[in-house]
Amino acid sequence: MIQDPSPKRTPLETLGEFALIDRLTSMVQLTQKSTTLGVGDDAAIVNHGGKDSLLSTDMLVEGVHFDLTYMPLKHLGYKAAVVNFSDIYAMNGKPTQLLVSLAASNRFPLEALEELYEGLNLACKNYGVDLVGGDSTSSMSGLVLSLTAMGEVDKGQAVRRSGAKPNDLIVVTGDLGSAYMGLQILRREKTTYEADPNFQPDLQGHEYVLERQLKPEARQDVAALLKDLDVKPTSMIDISDGLSSELLHLCKQSVTGCAIFEDKLPIDPATIRLCEEFGLHPATAALNGGEDYELLFTVSISDWDKIKGNPNLTAIGHMSDADKGSFMINQAGDQLPISAQGWTAYTTEETQK
Amino acid sequence: MIQDPSPKRTPLETLGEFALIDRLTSMVQLTQKSTTLGVGDDAAIVNHGGKDSLLSTDMLVEGVHFDLTYMPLKHLGYKAAVVNFSDIYAMNGKPTQLLVSLAASNRFPLEALEELYEGLNLACKNYGVDLVGGDSTSSMSGLVLSLTAMGEVDKGQAVRRSGAKPNDLIVVTGDLGSAYMGLQILRREKTTYEADPNFQPDLQGHEYVLERQLKPEARQDVAALLKDLDVKPTSMIDISDGLSSELLHLCKQSVTGCAIFEDKLPIDPATIRLCEEFGLHPATAALNGGEDYELLFTVSISDWDKIKGNPNLTAIGHMSDADKGSFMINQAGDQLPISAQGWTAYTTEETQK
Repeated sequence: MIQDPSPKRTPLETLGEFALIDRLTSMVQLTQKSTTLGVGDDAAIVNHGGKDSLLSTDMLVEGVHFDLTYMPLKHLGYKAAVVNFSDIYAMNGKPTQLLVSLAASNRFPLEALEELYEGLNLACKNYGVDLVGGDSTSSMSGLVLSLTAMGEVDKGQAVRRSGAKPNDLIVVTGDLGSAYMGLQILRREKTTYEADPNFQPDLQGHEYVLERQLKPEARQDVAALLKDLDVKPTSMIDISDGLSSELLHLCKQSVTGCAIFEDKLPIDPATIRLCEEFGLHPATAALNGGEDYELLFTVSISDWDKIKGNPNLTAIGHMSDADKGSFMINQAGDQLPISAQGWTAYTTEETQK
Repeated sequence: MIQDPSPKRTPLETLGEFALIDRLTSMVQLTQKSTTLGVGDDAAIVNHGGKDSLLSTDMLVEGVHFDLTYMPLKHLGYKAAVVNFSDIYAMNGKPTQLLVSLAASNRFPLEALEELYEGLNLACKNYGVDLVGGDSTSSMSGLVLSLTAMGEVDKGQAVRRSGAKPNDLIVVTGDLGSAYMGLQILRREKTTYEADPNFQPDLQGHEYVLERQLKPEARQDVAALLKDLDVKPTSMIDISDGLSSELLHLCKQSVTGCAIFEDKLPIDPATIRLCEEFGLHPATAALNGGEDYELLFTVSISDWDKIKGNPNLTAIGHMSDADKGSFMINQAGDQLPISAQGWTAYTTEETQK
């Protein structure tokens, strides 16, 4: 009945998620005095007269972001909330409220949604966040979750992606790549189970990587740690899509290049062992695996003494001038360009070595 | 692989949307000092030290909430934003920021999503709201939109659903039932078109009801109007699901009953004519049609002189003690119970007359 007036059709697959968002939001104009920061960071910054409020939203679609064959609903609820809180921590803030909307098809009974809410409530309890609103509706297929977290930070104290300078040190919390190897274990067990339904999954010995995948935690401790160390990051982001993707976000928005060192990447021994088992290069899991929910930030070189030797923090490289590009220096001393295309592109490069 | 541990399965269809939300949020505990009001109103109230911030979220699913055969994407974007703003106005607030998440299957090209964003941006421009964030992802089927609006109101000045007292006057803005009749027209044209694809839809003469359905506006004027009149509502809600459903929300949360008068319901002459054509009672369209996005509020009886005769406002009845129940008094003087079940239940009753 309604004719499509636009003869041009650009398939979404030809754009990445970030290019799509850039394109869609290119016409957005900000006019509110209360808007301090709009689209393009881990969270927006709004000020209604007191502290700065932080707002971040995430949408999770069954079959795209999660697979209920190996993700119990309670874990899904927990993870969905934590992932949102992580965006607030990545602004140097503290999450305070959460809104939860869900669309569920009629294959989900009430009890399933109650399990999901158990996970959401547990995350809210563990992180001191109030679930204050939401919406629920039916869907034509599967489960869609949309969460919006609100947080607070002292006025002007939010840390953006855009403040890094050349020579700033690049620091990550915790270790990288484990969540991705947890996913590999779960996928392998699912494939085996599908071939033989009598197969009993054996997940023993893989507790750490499975927990990193199924019940990740956000780094609520880092803001206080940095305050104690008297360090204010110049830029910060959380690692959801993988180190390489997040590094490129910081470089793009700070207008810098970067150099990181493969031998500095913090990777857990269990993850390294699994990478060997799966025939993957550990650096590839760390760079492109994603879902670690660690924080990646930059600090002035003059803060090096304050963070040196802290078991929670690892310096992995430094920012550089934008025209130098973004590289990882491997153990042989080769400079490998860091790619935004993530997994596939980088794997190809790794495989070619 | 994961066994369902809960043998009990309660189908979602056996619960209404509101019962489901009540059930899911029954375990929610609020602990944040900054949370003034949680789940259960048009918006949550949060205070980070300045004005009160209002937060409201809505999820819209293709095939459930909209049909793209007669809802152009630009209109969908506009309406989705306006519907969210309406929730903020229903708290006596002013929307200031908007977050937009969408999941789209690959049948949508970039140009389709750009059209959707054109509508979102136009609504933001018309209402002075900043689009500050969001998420975009792929979906397995169709389009899912999740919008979160943030607003502001002077501290303590938000109007909740819970403040009405017996004898308070019940007032509505604008007119009711038109958006529903616009939907009837669109559905009729779609059916005719499906039977004969060469059929050219004739929507002439139905501009008003179609605009109410396809491009509704939220009542951004009412807060200022009431301020000018020196009237503060005791309770307020926006009419999204239909007058009867919203009245019952106010009664439940204010612990009152209510009595409204059929002959007081403000219904546009074009809507009345269409109701006759479709064989519907106009009061049924007004009570159960929904999507009018007018405001429904209560005021103290002592404010009657201030609102009397205002062309934007219609007093339709009054609140009563809770044990009196909730009724509409028809032109014959009969008391008809107001039902939360909306359309179907009430239509049956109408048909039996």
